[in-house]
Amino acid sequence: MNETQILILQSFFSPEEENRLRDALPGFSVRFCGPADWADALPEASFVIGNPPVPLLRSAKKLRLLQLISSGANQYAAPGALPEGAQLACATGSYGPGIAEYLLACTMSLFLRLPAYGANQRAHAWHDEGPVRAMKGASILVVGLGDIGGQYARRCHALGAHVTGVCRTKREAPPFVEELHTFDELDALLPRADAVALCVPETKQTIGLMDRRRLALMRPDSVLLNVGRGTAVVTADLVQALRDGTIGGAALDVTDPEPLPPDHPLWDEPRCILTPHISGGSHFIGTRERIFSICLENARRFAAGKAAVNLVDRTTGYRVSQP
Amino acid sequence: MNETQILILQSFFSPEEENRLRDALPGFSVRFCGPADWADALPEASFVIGNPPVPLLRSAKKLRLLQLISSGANQYAAPGALPEGAQLACATGSYGPGIAEYLLACTMSLFLRLPAYGANQRAHAWHDEGPVRAMKGASILVVGLGDIGGQYARRCHALGAHVTGVCRTKREAPPFVEELHTFDELDALLPRADAVALCVPETKQTIGLMDRRRLALMRPDSVLLNVGRGTAVVTADLVQALRDGTIGGAALDVTDPEPLPPDHPLWDEPRCILTPHISGGSHFIGTRERIFSICLENARRFAAGKAAVNLVDRTTGYRVSQP
Repeated sequence: MNETQILILQSFFSPEEENRLRDALPGFSVRFCGPADWADALPEASFVIGNPPVPLLRSAKKLRLLQLISSGANQYAAPGALPEGAQLACATGSYGPGIAEYLLACTMSLFLRLPAYGANQRAHAWHDEGPVRAMKGASILVVGLGDIGGQYARRCHALGAHVTGVCRTKREAPPFVEELHTFDELDALLPRADAVALCVPETKQTIGLMDRRRLALMRPDSVLLNVGRGTAVVTADLVQALRDGTIGGAALDVTDPEPLPPDHPLWDEPRCILTPHISGGSHFIGTRERIFSICLENARRFAAGKAAVNLVDRTTGYRVSQP
Repeated sequence: MNETQILILQSFFSPEEENRLRDALPGFSVRFCGPADWADALPEASFVIGNPPVPLLRSAKKLRLLQLISSGANQYAAPGALPEGAQLACATGSYGPGIAEYLLACTMSLFLRLPAYGANQRAHAWHDEGPVRAMKGASILVVGLGDIGGQYARRCHALGAHVTGVCRTKREAPPFVEELHTFDELDALLPRADAVALCVPETKQTIGLMDRRRLALMRPDSVLLNVGRGTAVVTADLVQALRDGTIGGAALDVTDPEPLPPDHPLWDEPRCILTPHISGGSHFIGTRERIFSICLENARRFAAGKAAVNLVDRTTGYRVSQP
């Protein structure tokens, strides 16, 4: 038995998946850890699968690879979070398809006026709400073209929409994006969009991105969607924009503050779809399976002494290798 | 001026579209007709664009081609409806994309439990409804693979679903359908489906298709959608199936009876999305434009003495030529 200790988060994987992870690490000492075990187990661990509390990681002197089960890696990539020489891999790629489906379902629901038809249904009213927008031919502005934004853009394109992307740095547009621009061009793009989808992480650049001024650049029949972090939208400005008809509707899976307090006025906006941060996580059937397959791949690579996939650059916080 | 009289339904097309239709028929006497004009104008007409009342068509002795603005052509294809030798063309192909988008939006809304999240929102409750199904990997059963069913199947396939089609006669599956079966195999297919979408016209075979027995063949987490005719579902049986959890949800744009009476129990089913027959018609931006382009094409062909597109077989009622 190899004395190298492998720690794997307990009860996230199914028993069958746990067995497959164990089989991928022949000869290693594999231990499944609950929250109470991390402090005791981390000092001996070479390879960890899971998201242990950051403060405990200082004791993980033997750590060579930390495989997160999350997409976000910022707190683990922060200076000093991991011991020198340890590598960090994330689960980016697992969550994108689910969150993209959430975005698409909400875009189409808003285009079709399903919230208004829902209100009619509760009033038992057989009432026609008039012309509606189709995805086919719609102009979709995807702000942030990472895993989530890219997966959403791909789906919009497949349904015949005209997709414009906004990203941090100038690069060539992927085949499912008609135009790719940088953030400094955002103001000029907002008036053209039938839907604006925010798929950005929380950074200095994105906090307060959609404020009163930028909401006013959108059209009265255009809709706003947010799945990144709630702070990308100035909530009070959004409430006002929905009330006075500056924009046509909104769908938010993230809010600022979060959870939204029970007395917040946003709950009662009839053209706003509100969900409690459920598009990510492992809510979507398939997401957990994708996380497992990244973990399994890196377990195999660790056992074989090969370079890991989905590595995160610990200085920039961005993913450097693809799965 | 050619004395051949052409009648075109008034105010369905925009003034610019009316001009383009007129330009496509150089030398013909083109008249735009309101509802009051049909009786007077039909006896002289050789080519009609619109849906005049069927009883008046008996007087249209000179009629050579009737171009409908509807997809359904049954009453016009009925024996004796049109004079001998007149051809019938429909607008099939115009409505499919819009209705398919309605179906997709409702499928995804039901998978994502948006009706339940809507109820939570009205209660100001930040409450997680648990795991949800994605289109990616879902098993979608499309009952009726005509224009509407085909367009829906295409979109489901593009989003990574496994699509099974059911149609009248055995034929080769199109590339976006994994399996194609006939109606006699329906019972065996229902238990496998995550969503069952009814895209069938009203015929002897489809009236009462989804009754208590067939609803019980669906799974408790599966959802039913109907956009064809309300009679394809036995409404009382559906209400019962939603109440006792036999199926997981429903979306209906057509009902039996229609409109649904204000005191009908279906209005209050929390897992049912109800809309007032709005997925067809020209509600979707783009639908009217597609109808226009079929009409324009057949106007050009009529003027040139060429065979029309989108012809309907007057004995079977089915379309025989593609646009």
